[in-house]
Amino acid sequence: MQRKYAMILGNLGNTRDRFCSGYKTNPSTLEMLQQAVQIPRVTGIELVGTWDIDEKNAHEMQRRLNELGLTCVSVIPDLFAAPTYWKGSYSAADAQVRRTAIEYTRRMCDIALDLACPTINIWPGQDGYDYLLATDYDAQRGWMCEAVSALAEAYPGLRFALEYKPKEPRTHSTLARMADTLLLVQETGLPNVGVTIDTGHAFVAGEVVGESIALARRAGNKLFHMHFNDNHASWDDDMMVGSVHSVAFLETLYWLDRTGYSGWLSMDQYPYREDGAGAIGESILWLNRFDEILQENRAEIDRLIGAGDAIQTSRFLRKALLGS
Amino acid sequence: MQRKYAMILGNLGNTRDRFCSGYKTNPSTLEMLQQAVQIPRVTGIELVGTWDIDEKNAHEMQRRLNELGLTCVSVIPDLFAAPTYWKGSYSAADAQVRRTAIEYTRRMCDIALDLACPTINIWPGQDGYDYLLATDYDAQRGWMCEAVSALAEAYPGLRFALEYKPKEPRTHSTLARMADTLLLVQETGLPNVGVTIDTGHAFVAGEVVGESIALARRAGNKLFHMHFNDNHASWDDDMMVGSVHSVAFLETLYWLDRTGYSGWLSMDQYPYREDGAGAIGESILWLNRFDEILQENRAEIDRLIGAGDAIQTSRFLRKALLGS
Amino acid sequence: MQRKYAMILGNLGNTRDRFCSGYKTNPSTLEMLQQAVQIPRVTGIELVGTWDIDEKNAHEMQRRLNELGLTCVSVIPDLFAAPTYWKGSYSAADAQVRRTAIEYTRRMCDIALDLACPTINIWPGQDGYDYLLATDYDAQRGWMCEAVSALAEAYPGLRFALEYKPKEPRTHSTLARMADTLLLVQETGLPNVGVTIDTGHAFVAGEVVGESIALARRAGNKLFHMHFNDNHASWDDDMMVGSVHSVAFLETLYWLDRTGYSGWLSMDQYPYREDGAGAIGESILWLNRFDEILQENRAEIDRLIGAGDAIQTSRFLRKALLGS
Amino acid sequence: MQRKYAMILGNLGNTRDRFCSGYKTNPSTLEMLQQAVQIPRVTGIELVGTWDIDEKNAHEMQRRLNELGLTCVSVIPDLFAAPTYWKGSYSAADAQVRRTAIEYTRRMCDIALDLACPTINIWPGQDGYDYLLATDYDAQRGWMCEAVSALAEAYPGLRFALEYKPKEPRTHSTLARMADTLLLVQETGLPNVGVTIDTGHAFVAGEVVGESIALARRAGNKLFHMHFNDNHASWDDDMMVGSVHSVAFLETLYWLDRTGYSGWLSMDQYPYREDGAGAIGESILWLNRFDEILQENRAEIDRLIGAGDAIQTSRFLRKALLGS
Repeated sequence: MQRKYAMILGNLGNTRDRFCSGYKTNPSTLEMLQQAVQIPRVTGIELVGTWDIDEKNAHEMQRRLNELGLTCVSVIPDLFAAPTYWKGSYSAADAQVRRTAIEYTRRMCDIALDLACPTINIWPGQDGYDYLLATDYDAQRGWMCEAVSALAEAYPGLRFALEYKPKEPRTHSTLARMADTLLLVQETGLPNVGVTIDTGHAFVAGEVVGESIALARRAGNKLFHMHFNDNHASWDDDMMVGSVHSVAFLETLYWLDRTGYSGWLSMDQYPYREDGAGAIGESILWLNRFDEILQENRAEIDRLIGAGDAIQTSRFLRKALLGS
Repeated sequence: MQRKYAMILGNLGNTRDRFCSGYKTNPSTLEMLQQAVQIPRVTGIELVGTWDIDEKNAHEMQRRLNELGLTCVSVIPDLFAAPTYWKGSYSAADAQVRRTAIEYTRRMCDIALDLACPTINIWPGQDGYDYLLATDYDAQRGWMCEAVSALAEAYPGLRFALEYKPKEPRTHSTLARMADTLLLVQETGLPNVGVTIDTGHAFVAGEVVGESIALARRAGNKLFHMHFNDNHASWDDDMMVGSVHSVAFLETLYWLDRTGYSGWLSMDQYPYREDGAGAIGESILWLNRFDEILQENRAEIDRLIGAGDAIQTSRFLRKALLGS
Repeated sequence: MQRKYAMILGNLGNTRDRFCSGYKTNPSTLEMLQQAVQIPRVTGIELVGTWDIDEKNAHEMQRRLNELGLTCVSVIPDLFAAPTYWKGSYSAADAQVRRTAIEYTRRMCDIALDLACPTINIWPGQDGYDYLLATDYDAQRGWMCEAVSALAEAYPGLRFALEYKPKEPRTHSTLARMADTLLLVQETGLPNVGVTIDTGHAFVAGEVVGESIALARRAGNKLFHMHFNDNHASWDDDMMVGSVHSVAFLETLYWLDRTGYSGWLSMDQYPYREDGAGAIGESILWLNRFDEILQENRAEIDRLIGAGDAIQTSRFLRKALLGS
Repeated sequence: MQRKYAMILGNLGNTRDRFCSGYKTNPSTLEMLQQAVQIPRVTGIELVGTWDIDEKNAHEMQRRLNELGLTCVSVIPDLFAAPTYWKGSYSAADAQVRRTAIEYTRRMCDIALDLACPTINIWPGQDGYDYLLATDYDAQRGWMCEAVSALAEAYPGLRFALEYKPKEPRTHSTLARMADTLLLVQETGLPNVGVTIDTGHAFVAGEVVGESIALARRAGNKLFHMHFNDNHASWDDDMMVGSVHSVAFLETLYWLDRTGYSGWLSMDQYPYREDGAGAIGESILWLNRFDEILQENRAEIDRLIGAGDAIQTSRFLRKALLGS
């Protein structure tokens, strides 16, 4: 299967954290597009609503993407940067905020349709809670389900990919892990609602991504989108693929194929102190190399998965990865 | 609501770990029963199959329990101590092992019926995996689902409560968290399959127990049983309730009531270096005190849950817990 | 011992994270001072260099503090917000950056002397590393030691309190935990170099604060300063004291007394979504209540510490904290 | 530098955990020796006191080792399996237990001298604490220091290598991390007291092993011994090297050389469900391959460590590890 590589455009820009307002100067959207197209194998772009795209610049963006031979693979509504959503968006206790979030997302859906973009990547980062005994978890999940259902019903031609993450910016997110997100997907009962795996979020959640992919398949082929990055397993460090994990990425690609995933492999990083285009390019080269190893050894990996003998697997990995 | 307190009988015995074969001398089953009945408020007992109970001693056990005024609240099949299950029980790759596990559990179900015990607490501790690229996650989950379904269909008069835990003894368990266990429960489609929360397992999983209870309710009132213990959040230390967490236990009791849980609160600890009966008794006294605080402040807690203001919650907790 | 409570002034301001540039509008420095003085028991203020204070406003600040009856308890040089230090300050590989950081800190030391402030609180947040095989750990630690030594020798009348933290903003900090910071303190060989414990940083580091305090005592009474906040143990959530931990704070106060600590208890939080003054006030009220419990039970706690019987401790805590 | 590989003999035996008394049948000591000598490159053996060796079998063991061409590289006193030490050994609150532990260790030291074994590997697994407010941390550390000092003074011809571990079997160990162990080493003031790094313990502690090695060098070349295994970073899973981490092991070997470490690389694993000799053999083959990669690229790695550019490091690792 030919892999399709994409990236989130803003990865080339924002390098703010809570201490420093920016380690580097932000390039313009146009400059970021010109950098992106130079990164080997990148053919898809994810655009963050409001940051990268809005009603005013949508046609201009479409023209630019066409010129550069890029495809918009998802629109990511900005449900995390606007202070309006400081205590949640779709599941805010304030009904007016919930309406605002839904209405805003509808506008992003319209833009996605204009751009012939099939996927809305929903990361409701502000939805969750920080302190105990201050949240109605049941109501919160109900509101999340209502909002996602309303949007997915209104836009049957779009796929809504829910991106989970255990924590940050809230100490606990409503959509925290693969399995609870699948429960919500099932609660909507809608065919166009599914899940985005961000590999780094999964690592922080203590998940083995291969198993999370298998879970999504069992729930009805609900894996809609993939974000890639690496980390030291305790936090969403958003580092280059391969910096920490290696076997896990090989196994991830294997299970993507096993479950018939044909979507994009999109990079989602925060190169605070590295060259942005270089950091994204490295991730793709690592994934591409893991993919080559997979293609050359698929039958053997099938056998190892069935054999369940960790020593055989170790011997294989040593040779396949390290060449001896 | 009147709380019903129980305990796992073996908590008064085994103190083995991987380094030491036992820090204390194990009492006999009879001695453990006599200790158990002395612990204030304990009226229910959980019995581990083979360890505490088998076909031969079932009637004798029933007589003893009756004499002591104790109820058997669950039978826990031993799917974790027998070397047969070293690479899994219900989801072992070896079909013969899976059959053995199911057949063994059927015998435990028969014993439960004999004891008028309504609940089989299933902790498939050996089911999972240790190394990457050595497991068919999809098949494994399928086998787990098949086995649980076969048992629950065969014994419609029993409730099968699946106990999840993220890791140990395997580095990754198949039933790891509330949400993935609910997905499996839903996959069985059976009304008598549900979930056991072990509070310590949930802490290690990064869960807020109150939210896990709410998840089980949304999935169709699927919380069947509760195990209580505390830990330092990184491992299943099986300590006394209240040693580390406090607000979390108060919130847990609140959500049990909010969702109409009427089952047992059962203690599950490993008092390696403490007096067993004393350690279990302490847990019950802590829970009982949290319960009193809840009863006295239920309306206020309802209000705080709705208000979503962490400072108000803090002020309340300071006064309710610390008296000032 | 009479507790002295302080706070970091900026806690009432900045609520930026990497997604949102600010959940609330920042008050001016003057407004923050006016809020601070209203918080019960606050008599000390920590000022962040450049943010709160510089050569130009130092005299004005001194006048304001005097008017409000506040004491400046520490100056915190800004080694974390300026992009100059994006790859480290005192231990940057670039010698020019190291000189800049030292020179800047000298100016902050001069200001501290002007304000009769005895303590420089050094949090070298940008000093550390993100990726493996890209750092000379030995040189890095050497540079850190050189810079701290140079400053502490140049300002023998000031105390340099080094604040450790395991990670953030770097994935690994050079001063990560109590013990490695003490090693560096010893390497300087200077009497006016010591350590600041931030309770939240210690929780993330897996430390028991009471034990960290004991370590600092054994290394020669090297605990110079205390920052207080709480978190869910996996990240520096900077929450209100008492939100998650309770016994740990009681034990912390006990060991502060046991080791003769007579410094300030200063609040260091990030009330992103809470009223800033309210959140800091709550922390002080929790600490004050833990302190009352300690005063009332000091002899009993001494006895329990010696007895080493967790059940006795549990019984005591249940009564002392929950009143029954 | 020629690597010297060793292993802990008992790795081929005990597979007990707290649930199962043994997943496999334990071979005899003689059988284990015969297996060990078959593992490629193994020339050194670590013997656990009492388990593998005591006064009675010491001469017989020496003869066997000689016959097999094996060297005893360390004796590990059993301070963890005997119930006597359930609440600590060298730092038990009970002075009689402390004396017993010291006296027992002296006997092991005598055996080590008989075997011409230069190193006593001290893992005081039972020394630490489980619950808060039940331990005098200061006294505990003092007792640990006294015991180690007494032993090291009594046996100046032996090297005492203290092995740290954050937790298990206690929830908190007294010797928890590299830095606090170095503080204790310094407190003894003795040249023959140093540290053992167990790579898995270091991962659980959140350490980067390369940096821990650098810390030991700065404290006076205090790295005395190395234990190797891998894990999923949250627990001491004692898995085969290379199963999870790869860059970390390459970097570890680099820093061993940078700091002039000339000791043994000894395997310490728990192959519960794997062939023991096979699992240890795999670890050595992985290390050996990382070593080859290091030898071939040492100059380039030196350059990368100095350059501090994560993208260059990523490019190098991709080619050096994955061949492209």
